Amino acid sequence: MKHTIRVYHEDTDFLGVVYYANYFKYIERARSEPIRDYNLKFNFTVANVCADFKSPARFDDILTVTTNLDYIKGASVGLNQVITRDKDLIFLAIVKCAYVVDEKPTRIPQEVKDTLKDLFK
Amino acid sequence: MKHTIRVYHEDTDFLGVVYYANYFKYIERARSEPIRDYNLKFNFTVANVCADFKSPARFDDILTVTTNLDYIKGASVGLNQVITRDKDLIFLAIVKCAYVVDEKPTRIPQEVKDTLKDLFK
Amino acid sequence: MKHTIRVYHEDTDFLGVVYYANYFKYIERARSEPIRDYNLKFNFTVANVCADFKSPARFDDILTVTTNLDYIKGASVGLNQVITRDKDLIFLAIVKCAYVVDEKPTRIPQEVKDTLKDLFK
Amino acid sequence: MKHTIRVYHEDTDFLGVVYYANYFKYIERARSEPIRDYNLKFNFTVANVCADFKSPARFDDILTVTTNLDYIKGASVGLNQVITRDKDLIFLAIVKCAYVVDEKPTRIPQEVKDTLKDLFK
Repeated sequence: MKHTIRVYHEDTDFLGVVYYANYFKYIERARSEPIRDYNLKFNFTVANVCADFKSPARFDDILTVTTNLDYIKGASVGLNQVITRDKDLIFLAIVKCAYVVDEKPTRIPQEVKDTLKDLFK
Repeated sequence: MKHTIRVYHEDTDFLGVVYYANYFKYIERARSEPIRDYNLKFNFTVANVCADFKSPARFDDILTVTTNLDYIKGASVGLNQVITRDKDLIFLAIVKCAYVVDEKPTRIPQEVKDTLKDLFK
Repeated sequence: MKHTIRVYHEDTDFLGVVYYANYFKYIERARSEPIRDYNLKFNFTVANVCADFKSPARFDDILTVTTNLDYIKGASVGLNQVITRDKDLIFLAIVKCAYVVDEKPTRIPQEVKDTLKDLFK
Repeated sequence: MKHTIRVYHEDTDFLGVVYYANYFKYIERARSEPIRDYNLKFNFTVANVCADFKSPARFDDILTVTTNLDYIKGASVGLNQVITRDKDLIFLAIVKCAYVVDEKPTRIPQEVKDTLKDLFK
């Protein structure tokens, strides 16, 4: 699944590059797209993330966030998300999202699992 | 009323200065201090703001936000807020805050008025 | 000139609405579009802004920023910018941008004036 | 090394908690404190981070960021950073910072190593 990001002025820092925390905003925008399109209730929250900052992005860059499904378990989903600028690798992250209801980890209902599999088919 | 701000890395932009929208975060932090200290319910929302960007602040600057009360009306409060770095004028704003309950403008209760007058005495 | 904004998760606050400072990010994105498209050097900085917060925007809203030119003077440009969600008025701002070279206000070159007039025709 | 953070209004999201990317801002503030105090040139950049989101922080919380040194290698430094609210564990991260000059990974000079050891003694 692919999502396009424009680097805004607000995303940059005094070193002239995208401030490192903002890549987590970018991958979150990419994750929220399908949730919106499939009208899923907003029930996933990030439990764990590992990220590599490969190369800096800059003002006005057009970035692509590619999101793939690694696994669906009982109460969590594993994703990998890669940010590129043309052929340059900018950022990559392994993300574990927990299914959460009322701030408690909860088993993912079968219909949500089916929708997710469908989404990432 | 004075509040001290440190300019963080996250606040700067690729021009090497504080990104203009972030001054509004700074003055909001300054406004929220007394609300916390006096245990006021969080019922004010900004209705209108006019701001002058006088001189840029930079990474690691120590800034002072000075907040003064201009007026208390039936359903709103007028403040002026000035950001300085030593003797340098960085930013100034005239802010009108509406008293809001359930997202509707509401008359300010007398005890809130009294507390505000006390705060800015 | 119109620019479309999607309200991201990151833009909202604990009151469930868009955090007030973020509207200034939105109007800045709208202003930077033509600068990019016309390959203008990035020489404008906000000197003054007056803004009215009319109605709150929320997560996932699609907003339209409409930017109009009020005037071009020797060293500054006046814009008005309105944010709407369908027919709802969300935010409006009067913005004075100074033409700045090496952090000093500078006369706007005639070709930049011509480009701006062309842009907002 | 300990650093205190106040959760500002701007840090929260519509779920009523701190937006997940903002914890990376918090740990960056904590990392920059000693760099400032020791007048180190600002030459470290995050190469890799793994983070666990343990429990949500909320508006007005007072958080403590505890930063410990895991290792100093030729061109990088390993840190672990833990965010707590009283006895509650909020967030923890393992951070690899690369020493970077002109955007290129570079061997850490001996005096910088000595200063870091001194800092985290």
